[in-house]
Amino acid sequence: MKRRHFIAAAGGGLAWPLRPGVLSASLNAAYGTAPSDDFWELVRSMFLLDDDRIYLNVATLGIQPAPVVEAVVEHTRRVARSYPPATDWVGLRERLGSVLNADPAGIVITRNTTESMNFVANGLDLESGDEIVTTQHEHIGGLCCWELLAARRGLHLTQVPLPAPAATEDDLVQPMLDAVTSRTRVISVSHVLFTNGTIMPVARIAEFCRDRGILCVVDGAHPPGMMAVDVSAMGADFYASSPHKWLCAPQGTGLLWMAPRWRDTLWPTLASGGWNDGALGAQRLQHMGSLDESRVAGLDAALRFHDALGGPRVYDRIRQLRRHLAEGLASMPGVRIMSPPGDELAAGMVSFTVAGTTAPALQRHLAERANVRTRVVSEYDYGWMRLAPHVYNTMGELDTVLELVDAVTRSGL
Amino acid sequence: MKRRHFIAAAGGGLAWPLRPGVLSASLNAAYGTAPSDDFWELVRSMFLLDDDRIYLNVATLGIQPAPVVEAVVEHTRRVARSYPPATDWVGLRERLGSVLNADPAGIVITRNTTESMNFVANGLDLESGDEIVTTQHEHIGGLCCWELLAARRGLHLTQVPLPAPAATEDDLVQPMLDAVTSRTRVISVSHVLFTNGTIMPVARIAEFCRDRGILCVVDGAHPPGMMAVDVSAMGADFYASSPHKWLCAPQGTGLLWMAPRWRDTLWPTLASGGWNDGALGAQRLQHMGSLDESRVAGLDAALRFHDALGGPRVYDRIRQLRRHLAEGLASMPGVRIMSPPGDELAAGMVSFTVAGTTAPALQRHLAERANVRTRVVSEYDYGWMRLAPHVYNTMGELDTVLELVDAVTRSGL
Repeated sequence: MKRRHFIAAAGGGLAWPLRPGVLSASLNAAYGTAPSDDFWELVRSMFLLDDDRIYLNVATLGIQPAPVVEAVVEHTRRVARSYPPATDWVGLRERLGSVLNADPAGIVITRNTTESMNFVANGLDLESGDEIVTTQHEHIGGLCCWELLAARRGLHLTQVPLPAPAATEDDLVQPMLDAVTSRTRVISVSHVLFTNGTIMPVARIAEFCRDRGILCVVDGAHPPGMMAVDVSAMGADFYASSPHKWLCAPQGTGLLWMAPRWRDTLWPTLASGGWNDGALGAQRLQHMGSLDESRVAGLDAALRFHDALGGPRVYDRIRQLRRHLAEGLASMPGVRIMSPPGDELAAGMVSFTVAGTTAPALQRHLAERANVRTRVVSEYDYGWMRLAPHVYNTMGELDTVLELVDAVTRSGL
Repeated sequence: MKRRHFIAAAGGGLAWPLRPGVLSASLNAAYGTAPSDDFWELVRSMFLLDDDRIYLNVATLGIQPAPVVEAVVEHTRRVARSYPPATDWVGLRERLGSVLNADPAGIVITRNTTESMNFVANGLDLESGDEIVTTQHEHIGGLCCWELLAARRGLHLTQVPLPAPAATEDDLVQPMLDAVTSRTRVISVSHVLFTNGTIMPVARIAEFCRDRGILCVVDGAHPPGMMAVDVSAMGADFYASSPHKWLCAPQGTGLLWMAPRWRDTLWPTLASGGWNDGALGAQRLQHMGSLDESRVAGLDAALRFHDALGGPRVYDRIRQLRRHLAEGLASMPGVRIMSPPGDELAAGMVSFTVAGTTAPALQRHLAERANVRTRVVSEYDYGWMRLAPHVYNTMGELDTVLELVDAVTRSGL
């Protein structure tokens, strides 16, 4: 009954992106603010994921619910029929701004976080001898732009080690501040570390930067769609993200938000018409020739889907799933958890090692035994197994994975 | 009968991209090397274009045949189901290399020509005082990258006027060579001018450049899919293009080919893992984070479709359509054709003016009267109407447009 109710509210999929209000009201009426497992089963039914497939790698690439796929298909067909794309850029930026609590005028749609971070690094006027401070937990997507700039322009790049798991915010902030020198021009840091889901105290780092005239660049690949984000309160200069992860937008969707002072001054990386028209503000960077607007339509559908489920409901559920995994793993002898224990410092992922086996071996075992999709954090020689659950994962799936890991801790592979 | 035959060979659309050999053989058996109007009617039936819509603007954005749309849809669904994209990058580059007669190892897939051209401009080590020579017929997609570099790094940008219509190759080459000075480091030129379809003698320009140590960058947005291209014989340093135009690939597909000496030396613009691994060659630039691989699948399907129709057959047909338009217009008093008259210097487009009316007014008239989609070349204050036909256009459609223009030349709007 509930499933039928849900599907009816969804308008059968195709028309769905146009009716988030109806769906949202219907969900609220049916499930209230504390949704049951039934509710999440229905949410899963909106995804195209096979029942026998346990996908725990949203932190690399999200999967897309039916309304997002339909929006992409619809748009691709529209363009194929020679109709103009008719993308609602203004509405899209407003909906994204609402998820980020950020001024929509500062938002540019890109291909992914990597591109957004390169837009920042390329667009700044940094000079030989200038210094960038970042961490030994950055993803290549937010790191290589600085490596290249360092090599090409003679900059110095400092990568600070961080404790894993960290116990306090100070454990995470102090090593970064200690690395700052009089030549430091930029601190570039992930909002949530891809290595283990640690929430970095970016507002504290940004405040430190502001006081010293240092630029603060945040690689926010993970938080949007996974936890509440407040870009306005954060006070950074730039915030880069990939809605194709936790917001379940189509592969190849990114964003860059920039603070007001950069909107008419940052050099565009991909110049096209209007590149030097200051009146366009941040949208100068949006002029990059014919881009794939079906992705943009899919992103818009993903935002409507997210809004219909309700951000807080989604964020709570992800916390609940992460805790279930973390607590289960913590009870196993031989498992060492590399993520912080509590919700204050940990988000969306659990990274761990199992004594007596390697992460790649464990990854293969989980894939072979129960079709589980995971990520091994081989970067920086960490060698951790990473699990990243989302709303389409059921508690039963997590229990299956926990049982498999438990058996490995007892009997090996 | 023929239509059924064609559709059967096409395998119903969805499986089609896998069977170009079958389709190609079937087309050859049914139509030989000189296909009839029937053949082109069938080709049109593979496009999703409404019968009452006359699309003459492929030079801005192509429309996609059913197999391309299906490939995008299939791929989008695959990723939504959490399956890895499994893109055949090697095969794709081979098929592209075959259309371009270019070494596949030098090809990088981008978003569009604009991005490819920016990759070149950003990646070169040019210095204050260096000079770029280009034309007053460049599209913003191949021009703005140099404008930005000039403003940011203190370069000088020279834009050479060209005759329109040009009568000889010398008319086009000599003004460019005359603009070269001892400080000229780059000549950047379109292979086919977007303003009026003039074929630039790029091989002659590239030879001139080679002899003087000047780099030759070619904006080849139009030729691939529209005429035979021989990048190997051309001898330029870089060739940029947009398969989403004449190759009918999905919106948001571009390419950059680079000569061997640049493959391990050009600075990447969007750095990610492997950016400084010379062994990767040109593919260093392909590492740009998660991109939309459904576009790449669509591009591959477009190449198979092009190959099944047969490049020479397509190029002949486009020439035939262009000549039909040009000859019809040439016979009308008050029409002034801005494109060269013959196939040696003109490709794919006809640009013209009509005495007593403006191009925007004529554009509106054609759209209102017969649902014709055209482009006005307002750049550089040219004010020309541009018509760009492709294989899905019928001779009957062109006659409809010619009759409407003829009536305007007689009675005004």
